[in-house]
Amino acid sequence: PKRAVILAAGLGTRLRKLTEETPKGLLKVAGREILYRTMKVLQELGVEEFIIVTNPKYETKFREFAKKNSFKVQIVINEHPEKGNGYSLYLAKDLVGEKFILVMSDHIYGKAFLERAVKGKGLIVDKAPKYTSVEEATKVRIKDSCVEDIGKHLKDFDAIDTGFFVLTPEIFDVADEILSEKGKAELSEIVKRAKLKVTSVSGFFWMDIDTPEDIKKARKLVIQSSVKGSGDGVISRHLNRKISTRISSFLVDYVTPNQMTVVTFLLGILSALLNFVSIPLAGILYQISSILDGVDGEIARASMKTSRFGGYVDSILDRYVDFAFLLTLAYVTIKEPLWWAIAVTAIFGSAMVSYSTERYKAAYGSDIYREIYTMRYLIGKRDERIFLTMLFCLAGQIKALFALLAVLTNLRIAATVWLVWKNKKD
Amino acid sequence: PKRAVILAAGLGTRLRKLTEETPKGLLKVAGREILYRTMKVLQELGVEEFIIVTNPKYETKFREFAKKNSFKVQIVINEHPEKGNGYSLYLAKDLVGEKFILVMSDHIYGKAFLERAVKGKGLIVDKAPKYTSVEEATKVRIKDSCVEDIGKHLKDFDAIDTGFFVLTPEIFDVADEILSEKGKAELSEIVKRAKLKVTSVSGFFWMDIDTPEDIKKARKLVIQSSVKGSGDGVISRHLNRKISTRISSFLVDYVTPNQMTVVTFLLGILSALLNFVSIPLAGILYQISSILDGVDGEIARASMKTSRFGGYVDSILDRYVDFAFLLTLAYVTIKEPLWWAIAVTAIFGSAMVSYSTERYKAAYGSDIYREIYTMRYLIGKRDERIFLTMLFCLAGQIKALFALLAVLTNLRIAATVWLVWKNKKD
Ligand SMILES: [Mg+2]
Ligand SMILES: [Mg+2]
Repeated sequence: PKRAVILAAGLGTRLRKLTEETPKGLLKVAGREILYRTMKVLQELGVEEFIIVTNPKYETKFREFAKKNSFKVQIVINEHPEKGNGYSLYLAKDLVGEKFILVMSDHIYGKAFLERAVKGKGLIVDKAPKYTSVEEATKVRIKDSCVEDIGKHLKDFDAIDTGFFVLTPEIFDVADEILSEKGKAELSEIVKRAKLKVTSVSGFFWMDIDTPEDIKKARKLVIQSSVKGSGDGVISRHLNRKISTRISSFLVDYVTPNQMTVVTFLLGILSALLNFVSIPLAGILYQISSILDGVDGEIARASMKTSRFGGYVDSILDRYVDFAFLLTLAYVTIKEPLWWAIAVTAIFGSAMVSYSTERYKAAYGSDIYREIYTMRYLIGKRDERIFLTMLFCLAGQIKALFALLAVLTNLRIAATVWLVWKNKKD
Repeated sequence: PKRAVILAAGLGTRLRKLTEETPKGLLKVAGREILYRTMKVLQELGVEEFIIVTNPKYETKFREFAKKNSFKVQIVINEHPEKGNGYSLYLAKDLVGEKFILVMSDHIYGKAFLERAVKGKGLIVDKAPKYTSVEEATKVRIKDSCVEDIGKHLKDFDAIDTGFFVLTPEIFDVADEILSEKGKAELSEIVKRAKLKVTSVSGFFWMDIDTPEDIKKARKLVIQSSVKGSGDGVISRHLNRKISTRISSFLVDYVTPNQMTVVTFLLGILSALLNFVSIPLAGILYQISSILDGVDGEIARASMKTSRFGGYVDSILDRYVDFAFLLTLAYVTIKEPLWWAIAVTAIFGSAMVSYSTERYKAAYGSDIYREIYTMRYLIGKRDERIFLTMLFCLAGQIKALFALLAVLTNLRIAATVWLVWKNKKD
């Protein structure tokens, strides 16, 4: 479908305080408007133009929103919201093409859901909703792959309504019929009378946003799905991410990813300098910076503000933090050239761990952790090295730490090359 | 075009010694048969099937060649080579489709030439031949974009014949006509009588291989065009590559790229160990290994044997050679922790130079030296660092070397990040 109709004429009673000024679809979840999330992904999936049906009160807000984000939008004003959301749809009649999408402005959808939904036909339903409470949802009874009945209070139902439709203009005939009979029309009446075809897209993230609690819940889910993960080590999975996602949830509305990158970097450098004062404290701060290191990426992905440049700089800075910490640590503890040589080997090996995975991506164009699954079990990733470093700093075993890191990192590189060789395609 | 006819029925008089056993098209230039080069590139450009017209003597050779390289080939036997190469073409009559390529088996073509030629029509000519002697070539006089006259001894001509054609089946009618008149037919007669359309693809690498000297010349040119170049520093451009291409020319028929990678690595490690014996000698050997470092890549590209795995391992090993050399150098000269710290900074910075360019490729999917032209002028590339290292080793100024490298490499990284930022797209 090249066009999508967005229904946003409702007045959002239950979010009254928040929607006095701002329409529901323009409320932010994890740093981005609900509609921005839907529209950005739909655009990537081929939708070229959006038709937003709203009431006069919100017109300016939607125009500003469209302009700011360079969405191609036509605004249709519904002067009579009391005639129901079926009437809102009807107003878009002359603006849609052959096949079009209809979507609710107050539903948040994950990318995986949308990718599947746009390929569907008729009403998209969820037979196994994971994130929306069935109680509050609009239920659907299906017969021969078509809607038999639909409503909030159905006792006997097969799936729930996701608020996402892929329609053809025939729907307007049904709407017209109901409107001339009753002077108003609800979408559910139209769907039922049209015996609309049903497509099931089940188990993916989508939610109806009705209450302030829904916004909080959605934010948490969006942040959690923003964990990159593929290159995470044991410490990251079981400790760092658990803390960093909470921090991200807390900060996502106030802090940009770039600000977070800089703060984390400065904290890392501070931990390195702290080696001159207290090695155990330095080790702890280093581990804290490792936890925070996940936050910039999580915030960036959750608020759809990722940038290749941001990722690039973040990687370079991470290498310098590791270098600075191990260098100052060596400087305050090591006198003998032999132990310096071992420290150099550890420092070099730490940088090479990243080099060996990035060089793979440069050569093969894909993530080594996705291509070679065993890579995930290779120990020696940054989160693991930093955690080890903290432990050894607390125990005061600095030489042992350098010896261990020197062996661990360089063995890991050898294992990486071996795995790439085993997996090689040319 | 989906099919290509290859004329290989001639007996190669001037290369008699070499072609007693092997047809001209199967002679190797820089490690690959002339025809392999043509066919591999044509395959990439969409040709699915090859029709090789040859004489009975070479049939088995061509079958083996096709099988070994998994080319889809039909062999057509010309029992009467004396009837001319026009007759050879005529024999392919029933095997070609709508539009087909006709190409000589004893011409070597660069990729840039073939990419343009396949999009042409009729006879592909070169109006500004750079690599083939005009004297020996078949000349073409053009009128209204068509062949007016063609032959070796034309006085008045506009271009020379490249031996590459994009034809339609009408050509067989003309061939038929000439054959029934004279019982034999040369391609040039057919081309002239058909008033074939002419397309000019001028100035790119292609050569007619007639003599053993031609093979040598072609090998040299193929090796020279195999210099990767985009990431080369000043020393590489003005010194290392001049020597390495000669070595590659000499070795390409005997050594595989992987063997060369291993030898260069061992030599680099040897130079590092030599620091325990004589630092000036070690410096010289390190520089020699830097020259040889270009050879594996040159051989691989020239003989069309590049592999992503080969490039991957080569990069990792280069980092370890640099690490090993600087580490042993520091170990035999440095006692004070402060100077060790500076040495570590130099060693880390050296690895980070490569990291900063590879990480770019991983993030943006393209070569930083192509995307950001200024990068080529940033000093501190491996060839430059190694040359500097040799000079300082000869002068015995090891601490000065580490201080210089520590500053140079890390400033270079900062400059790289700055350039990426200036050039950023998101
Ligand atoms: Mg970071
Ligand atoms: Mg190498």
